[in-house]
Amino acid sequence: MDNIASESQNIDSTAGGVTAAHTGTGGKWEARLLQRVLRAMHEPPIEFLLDWSGERVAPRARKPIAHVRLADRRMLWNLLRNPHVTLGDAYSAGRVELDCDIVQFLDLLYLNEMQGGPAQVATSRRRAPSPRRNTLAGSRDNIHRHYDIGNDFYSLWLGQTMAYTCAYYPTESASLDQAQLAKMDHVCRKLRLRAGDTVVEAGCGWGSLALHMAQHYGAKVRAFNISREQIAYARSRLAERGLSDRVEFVEDDYRNITGRYDVFVSVGMLEHVGPENYREFGQIARRSLNPAGRGLIHSIGRNWPAPLHPWVEQRIFPGAYPPSLAEMMDIFEPSDLSVLDVENLRLHYARTLHHWLELYEAAVPRVRAMFDDIFVRKWRLYLAGSLAAFQTGTLQLFQVLFSTTQNNDLPLTREFMYPR
Amino acid sequence: MDNIASESQNIDSTAGGVTAAHTGTGGKWEARLLQRVLRAMHEPPIEFLLDWSGERVAPRARKPIAHVRLADRRMLWNLLRNPHVTLGDAYSAGRVELDCDIVQFLDLLYLNEMQGGPAQVATSRRRAPSPRRNTLAGSRDNIHRHYDIGNDFYSLWLGQTMAYTCAYYPTESASLDQAQLAKMDHVCRKLRLRAGDTVVEAGCGWGSLALHMAQHYGAKVRAFNISREQIAYARSRLAERGLSDRVEFVEDDYRNITGRYDVFVSVGMLEHVGPENYREFGQIARRSLNPAGRGLIHSIGRNWPAPLHPWVEQRIFPGAYPPSLAEMMDIFEPSDLSVLDVENLRLHYARTLHHWLELYEAAVPRVRAMFDDIFVRKWRLYLAGSLAAFQTGTLQLFQVLFSTTQNNDLPLTREFMYPR
Repeated sequence: MDNIASESQNIDSTAGGVTAAHTGTGGKWEARLLQRVLRAMHEPPIEFLLDWSGERVAPRARKPIAHVRLADRRMLWNLLRNPHVTLGDAYSAGRVELDCDIVQFLDLLYLNEMQGGPAQVATSRRRAPSPRRNTLAGSRDNIHRHYDIGNDFYSLWLGQTMAYTCAYYPTESASLDQAQLAKMDHVCRKLRLRAGDTVVEAGCGWGSLALHMAQHYGAKVRAFNISREQIAYARSRLAERGLSDRVEFVEDDYRNITGRYDVFVSVGMLEHVGPENYREFGQIARRSLNPAGRGLIHSIGRNWPAPLHPWVEQRIFPGAYPPSLAEMMDIFEPSDLSVLDVENLRLHYARTLHHWLELYEAAVPRVRAMFDDIFVRKWRLYLAGSLAAFQTGTLQLFQVLFSTTQNNDLPLTREFMYPR
Repeated sequence: MDNIASESQNIDSTAGGVTAAHTGTGGKWEARLLQRVLRAMHEPPIEFLLDWSGERVAPRARKPIAHVRLADRRMLWNLLRNPHVTLGDAYSAGRVELDCDIVQFLDLLYLNEMQGGPAQVATSRRRAPSPRRNTLAGSRDNIHRHYDIGNDFYSLWLGQTMAYTCAYYPTESASLDQAQLAKMDHVCRKLRLRAGDTVVEAGCGWGSLALHMAQHYGAKVRAFNISREQIAYARSRLAERGLSDRVEFVEDDYRNITGRYDVFVSVGMLEHVGPENYREFGQIARRSLNPAGRGLIHSIGRNWPAPLHPWVEQRIFPGAYPPSLAEMMDIFEPSDLSVLDVENLRLHYARTLHHWLELYEAAVPRVRAMFDDIFVRKWRLYLAGSLAAFQTGTLQLFQVLFSTTQNNDLPLTREFMYPR
């Protein structure tokens, strides 16, 4: 699809084993190693083209729809050691040609990986390097690497709200901006936010939810974030909207939250906390809440524990980890918090990503001007891969509403979340 | 409140340590042991009266509101070994006098136990005997001991529907029967039950949900239960309603479910499965579902793992265990099932129990005629204790909606659960 498309006339896409156009020395063991890579990945429809020998290796029983050009033997070793990262990098470097749309291909790849259930995914990601640590300093670096790329870049494809989390589509026809605003209202409604309520937000992105809570619900919000660029942007929006008496943006780690509030909220930040810190995260939520306090955590998750896709963790979101619900419970259970409601918004994230990818593709010339071709492809792969992950159920989106255990001031039904 | 009320004039309810009216031999070490029992239970407001010596032992810092008469030294040893079971038995035996309503007292006892959070409850229940096993034969015996007590007895206080699970109160003023029917509709709506859908039910009680699904939604239901009395009752209702072509009541264990269905449902049965069997339970749910299958599990649960109250497990529900959400996830995660929605209906169970207890108290003369005074008090304690447990947050009620992971035929929002 990219800059190797011009070479497509050289590609023989017939399925089946090795087609040695020009067999060089060592051709046999190289082919055997690549067959092992394909087996380890559960035989995806990928063909490898060896630049140095002209050899081709494809899965034995499937017609390949992706063609990956290996530049040299080092790339072959990288594939053996870490196939997921190497394939992602090959795409970014323009060494992958696809016979179909990238999302379709990634859908297929995920479905292929998931066929054998949780155990198969665990095996296939076994050799991935461990995620980067989320210590206080580690988190600062991890967050800087992703969120400080540039507000101008993100504003090209996030829409008006600059909300960089799963939107909520009340109807099939809602636009991205409508769905992002609807998400904020959905969260505020779940939390039964009232004028005068005090809120602490752990991880506030560019500030859209904090501002929305203050402007439309009359809440007083303290919002924490360690991304300098995001905080700067959020503060300029705050000044513009004249809400400085009701919102404070704090450039600090969630671990440094102090005080007591009516509401604890965290939308799209848990992915960066790391499961080893969930207990502490829960303790922070617990000690931040007034006796009748309510809380909501919104996070990407999984149907079963598995690391984030290694390429995404290595190249896009260092230190990130999407938890299963069982893992998430480590936030609530040891801290005596009561889970009131869990909603899985997986298909809403597929829609959100569809909208982001559309805006991104339209902005590609400007992204290329800001960065380069490799960056353009890398971010396309990330957005398309995320879309495929939510579409196929590799990733989920959980909104968990909770309260202190002894809080009996709760509505009987959830009808209040759906005003008409 | 019961048959020792006549002796209340002898009880000096002044708080504080030992008041030896008639100090017998060995009075000091007995008092020390009882102080130890009180400390292990985190100083509840309970006074012990030693029948053989006339001594009284009360917590050091609280005015007691319950007065427990010990018949002999064996009871003292039992208290040391297993305070929860011994106190429950003392109540059943008519050896407890209360200065307040039984539910108020039990509320207080639970709040007292929960003060120190999850760790304190774990310590306080440390010495409880392990729950009875839920093997195929063990389950049959465990279920027989509770559910086969007699349909006539249960019909005295369960209301018209004979549903013996948490009801759903759409409004504050709903009656028990209305709320039980609303619960069935809430479950059917969540499952998007349509005419012609095939359903398998794991644990069907007296058959009310299966019959409701067939009669009002046109579903075809196979419902499993190992309680002979319940199955007999369900079959007679089935014949009365003329639904034999749409419902089959199978007297067999859920582990023997075969076939594939559009819907898997289990309301109030998981409590009897035991966490060691959750993986297998999930595999059964998974293999019973068609590709676009939906499932719902409704169960008593907890905010953190802890055994059932030992007296309830020993005397009322052998083998029962209410899981935390993390524990429940062992059903879904290893079987690649996707959790779509979790609703905590804790306060609905408090309401349901309030209604049951009211009906039960009105039926006490008939219960006494069927059984005896000990049985009357034992079941009062169980119902009042359950009400207190849900009121104080010691117990929760989780409804978990799920589907196969690759099912994308899902409504965007949950509005369909709340038709108006």
